[in-house]
Parts: sequence; C-alpha cells; structure tokens
Amino acid sequence: MKDSFQILLKKEQAAFDKVLKEYLQQLNMPAYLKEAVLYSINAGGKRLRPLLMRLTCAELGGNEEHVYPAAIALEMIHTYSLIHDDLPAMDDDSYRRGKLTNHKKFGEATAILAGDGLLTNSFHAISTSPLYSAEEKVHIISKLTTASGLEGMVAGQLLDMEAEKKSISILELEHIHHLKTGRLISFAVEIGGYIAGLPSNKLQTLKSLGEYLGIIFQIQDDILDVEGDEEVIGKKVGSDSENDKSTYPSILGLEGAKIYKEKYLEEAMKCIEIVGLKNTVLADITRYLSERNQ
Amino acid sequence: MKDSFQILLKKEQAAFDKVLKEYLQQLNMPAYLKEAVLYSINAGGKRLRPLLMRLTCAELGGNEEHVYPAAIALEMIHTYSLIHDDLPAMDDDSYRRGKLTNHKKFGEATAILAGDGLLTNSFHAISTSPLYSAEEKVHIISKLTTASGLEGMVAGQLLDMEAEKKSISILELEHIHHLKTGRLISFAVEIGGYIAGLPSNKLQTLKSLGEYLGIIFQIQDDILDVEGDEEVIGKKVGSDSENDKSTYPSILGLEGAKIYKEKYLEEAMKCIEIVGLKNTVLADITRYLSERNQ
Repeated sequence: MKDSFQILLKKEQAAFDKVLKEYLQQLNMPAYLKEAVLYSINAGGKRLRPLLMRLTCAELGGNEEHVYPAAIALEMIHTYSLIHDDLPAMDDDSYRRGKLTNHKKFGEATAILAGDGLLTNSFHAISTSPLYSAEEKVHIISKLTTASGLEGMVAGQLLDMEAEKKSISILELEHIHHLKTGRLISFAVEIGGYIAGLPSNKLQTLKSLGEYLGIIFQIQDDILDVEGDEEVIGKKVGSDSENDKSTYPSILGLEGAKIYKEKYLEEAMKCIEIVGLKNTVLADITRYLSERNQ
Repeated sequence: MKDSFQILLKKEQAAFDKVLKEYLQQLNMPAYLKEAVLYSINAGGKRLRPLLMRLTCAELGGNEEHVYPAAIALEMIHTYSLIHDDLPAMDDDSYRRGKLTNHKKFGEATAILAGDGLLTNSFHAISTSPLYSAEEKVHIISKLTTASGLEGMVAGQLLDMEAEKKSISILELEHIHHLKTGRLISFAVEIGGYIAGLPSNKLQTLKSLGEYLGIIFQIQDDILDVEGDEEVIGKKVGSDSENDKSTYPSILGLEGAKIYKEKYLEEAMKCIEIVGLKNTVLADITRYLSERNQ
C-alpha cells in the first residue's frame, strides 16, 4: 500500500496543484504578497485532504473534477492555519518540512497577511466557481466556515494552547483534535460525497468517517513521536514528551494508544462499508493512515 | 449635522449591535475565545460601515432589516482587520479608542485566533442567514471576499507597510487607501443598493460613491492629524509627520489636500444625485465625513 499511496499522492498533487496555482496566479495582488502566498502553497504539503475529497467523490460515482474548487479552498485554509500556527506568538517554528516557515522567510507581518488572504480567498474561490450552483456554493461555504471558524478549527487551536498548561483527560484531548484536525478532514470526506450526490443519511456517515480518520491520523502522529524513526519521518521524535504535552500515549500508554487506534479503525471501516466503499482505495488509505511510519 | 449624525450613529449602534451580538452569542466556542472576540466587537466602534449600508438601502426603498447579515459580516471583517493591524508585528499598538488592544488584553496568540475566527465566521453569518436567497448569498460573499482578500484590503495593508519605507506619489497613496479602506466602504454602499434591488448600472455608481467616501474619509483623517484638536479626536496629532508617513498633506500640502478633498466631495455628490439620493441623510453624512473634526 505504501508505494501505491505515494504514487496516488503524487498524481493527486500534479492535477490538484495545477488548479490551485491557476487560481492564485490569476489574482491581481502585490508581488511580495503573491510570493509569500505561493511559497507556503508550494512548501511540499501532501495534499491529503484534497486526495480524500477526490477519492470519496470518484469512488461514489461523482464527477471528480467538480471537487477542485472546494478542495483548493480547503487546502488554502489548511495552509493559512499552518502559517499562523508557526508564528512566534503561536508555536514559534522556524522550519516546516525542511523549509523556512513563512514568517522566517517573509517577516511576521507578511505571514499574518498571507494567512488572512488565503483564508479570505478560499471563500472567494468557491463563490466565484463556474462549477457549482448557488445552492451548492452556499452549502459548501456554510460547512467550511463551520469546520474552520470560531466553532471549529480556530476553537481547537485555542483549546490546544490552553491544554499545554495543564493535564487533560482523554475526552478533552479527543475534543481538541476533533476540532483542530478532525473537522477539516471530515469536511473533505463529506463534501466529496455531497458532490457525488449522496443522500443526507449517508453524508452523515461520511462525516463520522472523516472524524474517525482525523483521530486515527492524530493517534498515529503521537505514536510516531514515541517510537518513530527520525530518518523516515523527517523530524525529531520525543518532542511531545520533552514539552510535557498531553498525547494519546502519555494518557493511555503506548499499548493503550494502539488499542484505542484499532477501535477507531474498526469504526471507520464500518462507515466505509455502510456507504458502499468496502473494497476501494479509500479503505486502503484509511488502513495506511493507521499504520504509516511517516 | 454633527449632533444628528451622532444620534443616528447611536441609534444604528443599538439596533445593529443587538443582531451582531445575538449572532456571536449563540456560537458554541471556548469561553476565553468568546471573551476575546466580544471584547473587540464591543470596543466602541462607530459602526459607520453598517450605517452606510442601512441608509443606502433604506433611502432607496429597500427593507433595511435585510442588510443586517451582510452588515454584521462587514463589521466582523473590519474588527478582525483592526485586531491583526494592532499586533506587535504590524502597527504594534497598545491602545485603541482608549482601551487595551486585543493582544494586550488576551495575549498575541488569542488575538491572532480571534481575528481569524471573526474573518471566517463573517462568511458563516451570510451563508447561514435565512434572509437571503442562495443567489444573494453568493453575490454578497463574492463581493466581500474580493473587497477584503488578497486583491483587496489585505493587499492594501501590505502596500501600506511597504510604503512606510519609501516616498510615494499621490496616485500610489490613493491606490493604497482605495484597497485598505475604500473597498470595504464601497462594499457597504454597493450592497445597501443591491439589497434595495437597484439595477446594475446604478450599483456601479454606488460603488464609485463608496470609493470616493473612502478617500474623503482618509484625507480628512490625514488633515486632522495636522490641524485637529487632540481633545476632540481623542488621539495624539502629528504622529504621521513624526513617523515620516506619506499622507495627503505631506504630498500636496495642507491646502492642496483640502482642495483635493473638495474635488472628491463633488464627485461623490454627483454619484448621490445620479442614484436619486440628493436630499437624504446619506448626502448629509457624505458632507459630514468631509468636514468632521473627530
């Protein structure tokens, strides 16, 4: 699976990046702002969320080209959140995926503005797309703002900061990750199904699948920080424990975290079966996300 | 005019603030985030943009209650831009309207997140409103993202920062203010007319009116920084010249700036006449914005 997953991701990147960059390139903005925006857009993101959206849509029989405006909006929001998260006042990171972070390269003020602009224009990309009806645009924008705004990702980020100063329960940890990571992954899967024309009860199942995927992704992230191979994952391991951060292994123990992850993998597989996607690449990816070593 | 304008603003504040706060209060977000968001929302903004939108709509015969979702979105975007502008990496201001700025009160990370959240939820407020059709929502969101995003206010903010380091022409100065301030004021007036059902050629005239209003507002701001009364305007005068900032008076001289402003006032009045609003409060406000002493 690992190799074919990498090939899938590469293929996704090429097709998706073309649409994303075409959208940003045609915007009339100051040269330095465009440079800063494209720098982070081109900083080597895996495009996991767009891939999940496209696969869900395609495997349910939808027109996969129709996911692109929603997918580029989602990736722009993901990118803005990374730019702002890296700021000195937040995580204060100098590098991301081996490259200087946006504020290290362009200065803090420009990084703040590049993030603000990407966020704003993600809704512009949807609202001006010729591929959706007005009703579809409103549905997608309403879901995306809920997933990423004051009740979603932004709330998760704030709770995550607050949690750094105290010991939290497994339920609190899950709630934070649900908001911070799960909501956008869930949006990807749900909107993939929406564009494929799935009825609302099955969209609800896809939404749950996305939430489980978010948790599985996060637990594996925490596990890799304990027993991962630095060479393979490309970053230092053990930083969570150094920073005294609450993680699945720190609360449940390493074996406990693995059992917990298996439980969610089972739930995810149930959802996949319900929506009729049992023997698909989406099922393979779900397993891969749970077992990945990077 | 001054007194009646103040009364109008007060009345506007009361009705508008009720809707704005109702929207924010019903959102399910962490207590500290809600506190930070409401702090800046309640920080004494004049609600000029919502007032312009409502008056334009009402005086053109539209249902003024229908401006509220668009107006609260606009005010949320205006508020987010102030929170981010005040950050240490940007203007580094500790006070705004006599109160601590958001980051001084809640910390930089929370201020960044409160701004991000207000921006995101402004589009949520429009997309979930029961007052507009899907087509209206898409029209308003598309206009608002264009006015405030990478091609609008965000671009203006970046150009403004770049201009601090060099001497610029009057055309460059105007371009910056057009993007930074004019686009949102223009949105207010244009959408007021749109909600009132104005045909598109007249909407174009309203858009121009809004752009002129933005420039008039800015020139008067610059003039007040030269000859204003600190007690009346509630902030230090002379700071532009101290900071060596390019302004209308610094480029055109004080008298030149006043003549320039008069020229734009004439243009604004022509627009007002074209859309049939000659003897209205909107015309009074336009004159007031040009003559205000605070």
